[in-house]
Amino acid sequence: MPGGNGLLSKRPELKSANYPQYADRAHGCEIVAQNKKYLDFHLMGIGCCTLGYSDEDVDDAVRECIRDGNMTSLNCYEEYELAELLLKTNPAMHMVRFSRLGCDALSQAIRVARAHTGKSKILHWGYHGWHDWYMAGSCEFDASLYMGPNGQPNAGIPKCLKKKIGQFELDADLSNVAAVILEPALFTTDFLNEACQKTYDADVPLIYDEITSGFRTHLGGTYLDITRNWDPDIVVYGKAMGNGYPICAIVGNEHVMSAYNDTFVSSTFNTERTGFCAAIATIEKMQKNRVQDTLVRNGGAVKKLWKEAAKECGLKLEITGIDPLATFEFIEDERFDYIDKDVYATLYQQEMVKKGFLAGSQYYASVAHDFEKSVKFELAVHEVFHDITEKNMYPDNAHIIKRGVKHT
Amino acid sequence: MPGGNGLLSKRPELKSANYPQYADRAHGCEIVAQNKKYLDFHLMGIGCCTLGYSDEDVDDAVRECIRDGNMTSLNCYEEYELAELLLKTNPAMHMVRFSRLGCDALSQAIRVARAHTGKSKILHWGYHGWHDWYMAGSCEFDASLYMGPNGQPNAGIPKCLKKKIGQFELDADLSNVAAVILEPALFTTDFLNEACQKTYDADVPLIYDEITSGFRTHLGGTYLDITRNWDPDIVVYGKAMGNGYPICAIVGNEHVMSAYNDTFVSSTFNTERTGFCAAIATIEKMQKNRVQDTLVRNGGAVKKLWKEAAKECGLKLEITGIDPLATFEFIEDERFDYIDKDVYATLYQQEMVKKGFLAGSQYYASVAHDFEKSVKFELAVHEVFHDITEKNMYPDNAHIIKRGVKHT
Repeated sequence: MPGGNGLLSKRPELKSANYPQYADRAHGCEIVAQNKKYLDFHLMGIGCCTLGYSDEDVDDAVRECIRDGNMTSLNCYEEYELAELLLKTNPAMHMVRFSRLGCDALSQAIRVARAHTGKSKILHWGYHGWHDWYMAGSCEFDASLYMGPNGQPNAGIPKCLKKKIGQFELDADLSNVAAVILEPALFTTDFLNEACQKTYDADVPLIYDEITSGFRTHLGGTYLDITRNWDPDIVVYGKAMGNGYPICAIVGNEHVMSAYNDTFVSSTFNTERTGFCAAIATIEKMQKNRVQDTLVRNGGAVKKLWKEAAKECGLKLEITGIDPLATFEFIEDERFDYIDKDVYATLYQQEMVKKGFLAGSQYYASVAHDFEKSVKFELAVHEVFHDITEKNMYPDNAHIIKRGVKHT
Repeated sequence: MPGGNGLLSKRPELKSANYPQYADRAHGCEIVAQNKKYLDFHLMGIGCCTLGYSDEDVDDAVRECIRDGNMTSLNCYEEYELAELLLKTNPAMHMVRFSRLGCDALSQAIRVARAHTGKSKILHWGYHGWHDWYMAGSCEFDASLYMGPNGQPNAGIPKCLKKKIGQFELDADLSNVAAVILEPALFTTDFLNEACQKTYDADVPLIYDEITSGFRTHLGGTYLDITRNWDPDIVVYGKAMGNGYPICAIVGNEHVMSAYNDTFVSSTFNTERTGFCAAIATIEKMQKNRVQDTLVRNGGAVKKLWKEAAKECGLKLEITGIDPLATFEFIEDERFDYIDKDVYATLYQQEMVKKGFLAGSQYYASVAHDFEKSVKFELAVHEVFHDITEKNMYPDNAHIIKRGVKHT
């Protein structure tokens, strides 16, 4: 299997040498991997499992769906019910379509915006999946997509598409643009407000890519906690929406979304039931338990813990990201000039694994990180930060995590 | 929801007015829809459910997977196990990657072929999903993709891609071609052998799209029953592979597939477990029960039945497709010049629905079509063919199925 699996973030070369590779089973935030128990304070299903692994309510909804038949020649009610639920969580929107993959959902949003405007150029900011329309220009945007020793992320993409994608800036010329697509969680209120105003004035569809950020701070999209005055034309949701079951949604206003009627977007498995059932159960549980409040609180606590533990050891950290998607980076320090920040990051992961934790420089918040487990995690982080600064350590097998790889 | 759902073939405007729209539950070939029971002798999950709906063995495998956690931050063993199983069913191949959507799986095959050759032009024959690389030229190939009243299937696709796709002919110039992609089930042995020889000589990757035809007559692909001398470079499987659970595979030789290491293809949900578990259970059951023999037998029997019933009533039919994917078309007849073939097709469906059958001019074979149900179906087809020729009928609500729409 080229790459070893279907997802960059699950490749062993991006982890410390002792990080486990295969899971036997998982529950809450506990993973049993090759007969050892770990607490996952790292990626929690690469951002999917905010309710924790094997959530009973979501799994029960899927089991019920399976009992009655997960696929038939006819439509299922849940496709429609999930669409209604999403429009309730984001009342600015009018229409919905679904997908089973983030890359495909984003390609749908791009197609419909291009069909609406009759133009083809896209301006973007963020990471938007492996498909041609985006990856055509990725070499210029993102050097961190690890390709193997000889790879170029855009090998195998028609060169003519390179002119159809560029980076968005607030002073960009929008006169010939089919859509602006942004990850709103990367921006400030002022930036988003100005981007909204400018795209609105130019009648250019604005797409918010909330594949990763959606359902972390607000059910209708994290953007609603950044800018309350403006909505985009389309929001694309993914990862956390079905607590680990494949389901994504394209949710937008009638103005742009009705262009779905003018172009061809159709896929058999986009109508299979398990994803809809999982997403309904996930969103209803999030709503009932105010899950986003817990995610924000847990993420904030981890940011604070990193900061305090680093300060105690004289380590310098840069901490970024919205609270439920917290990230740190070691800042190089002349005190430790024999060691670079990738070595630090690898040592941190390696020593945390030895203590029974999956951890890294990213923390994806989950409600499964309860008080007891969080206290243990806190203690472990303090100990490991001490060890990697006090002891003259170097990563086992000289295996160093590649710099700057994002978990996508 | 623009289009009413995510799949062309599930749109009500493509069915008779009385064809049910929403399923309550399904088992075997029986669907309960809006409290009425129907036997599905039509599309069987749009080609996915050859083992029948709610197959206990496949569902048990998925339930077991759910019990242990369907998604974690780590890899799952089944991704690797399914890859090994696929390479056993098709020993000419060496490498495997997966997807959850046919369109995405085909886009992966195209990307890897383009990365391998460094060229961009694709020659094709068949239907290969809604993505830009293919749909850019679709208006010229396929007038039957129904778009709504104002739609163009390629609206919203950069025009520069139109030059990158063309139809394959045996005398095509292959000097500047990145890949040839065909649906092998549409061709004769001689044609496929010549296509293989020509692409091999020109060192152009040959991709067989077995999304629809795969697992119908042979576990390794229907092409293996058409041409035994030659293998393509890549085969793409979908629909029937997981008996209704979303799972697709890209299976190929090392020569072309190793180009996955040179480009970026990565998606979170392509590593989720349920699809792998469903596919392993489906393929193992197919193997154990020699399911393909039954599908070929059932399809052959339905073709024979259509022919005999039509002959009895003086109706003329053209019957096409491999046996497990049988299709008929009414041939217009001066005896019935007041009525055209679309009206006939609509009447056939409408009257079959009244007798409790989902049926149409396509038959997707399933092992759930046992002797008892098949006898009932045979009787119903005879009666309906009689009725639509003997009685002066016209479709209810004057709702006529659109001509030539394929179920994709």
